[in-house]
Amino acid sequence: MTKNKSIFIILLRLLALGATVAAIAVMVTSHDSTVVLNLTFSAKYSNDPVFKYFVVAEAIAGGYSLLVLFLFSKQSKLWRLIIILDVVVTALLISSISAAMAIAHVGKKGNSHAGWLPICGQVPKFCDHVTGSLIAGFAAAIIYLLLLLSSLQAILSPVIALNP
Amino acid sequence: MTKNKSIFIILLRLLALGATVAAIAVMVTSHDSTVVLNLTFSAKYSNDPVFKYFVVAEAIAGGYSLLVLFLFSKQSKLWRLIIILDVVVTALLISSISAAMAIAHVGKKGNSHAGWLPICGQVPKFCDHVTGSLIAGFAAAIIYLLLLLSSLQAILSPVIALNP
Repeated sequence: MTKNKSIFIILLRLLALGATVAAIAVMVTSHDSTVVLNLTFSAKYSNDPVFKYFVVAEAIAGGYSLLVLFLFSKQSKLWRLIIILDVVVTALLISSISAAMAIAHVGKKGNSHAGWLPICGQVPKFCDHVTGSLIAGFAAAIIYLLLLLSSLQAILSPVIALNP
Repeated sequence: MTKNKSIFIILLRLLALGATVAAIAVMVTSHDSTVVLNLTFSAKYSNDPVFKYFVVAEAIAGGYSLLVLFLFSKQSKLWRLIIILDVVVTALLISSISAAMAIAHVGKKGNSHAGWLPICGQVPKFCDHVTGSLIAGFAAAIIYLLLLLSSLQAILSPVIALNP
């Protein structure tokens, strides 16, 4: 692996770490409340199992990114394991952001056929936080997909050279 | 690649094709209706954008599986492209099944905090179809993840042998 490529990979992993930390921080601080017919209606991320799954997935991906940054070395004997774990973490990130975006879409637009009303009009601060968190989570998933494709390109290239 | 391994891969791709076709067929035939206060309430998959995304993703994965089965050859020069496309199709399948499962969960359990009521009590036939379709879609995603890990194992092994 060339030096430039190593720096690029480390930069991507740092960006992924930053994105997951941002996603968690913005999501867990999201709360807003509104009063409807004398009843206080409070919105927070832990009211929805999908948002909890999202936070757990981002925490796993963030912890893994940190671990790999510390263990990372051009000569690391763990690089095969890291590629396999990258696949698993990418799958986890894509799954959690997709599920969270689906629920956020119902929260924003509702679904008139199912009788589910949008809630963003009542709790705009909550919705803004969730939107910010999902943008960071989306960035983390894209960065991991890039890391994975970059690893694949790196391991496919020597094979190309050896088996022309 | 050994002959046994080739047969295993072809079998997995056939299974993935079957799973995507089953997911699409069961999802598009899902409909049910109920009468609430003299209003007919009709449930079908196209009422939800996430279920439409699910059907499109399964169709792309199914079409791709069919194409690869026809183009597949042990000596195929396209195998590097196929691995990259496998990553993309796996990502698409994981994303669509996760989003669809999130919406199906709201349909089944509702979310009392957001005031979204479960609809499965009113349209049980619709919910049964969606559940069946999601099981097939989940199987397709798992099969593609296995295919991807199997491809990685295959391309990592010669490198292990060549660079001990």
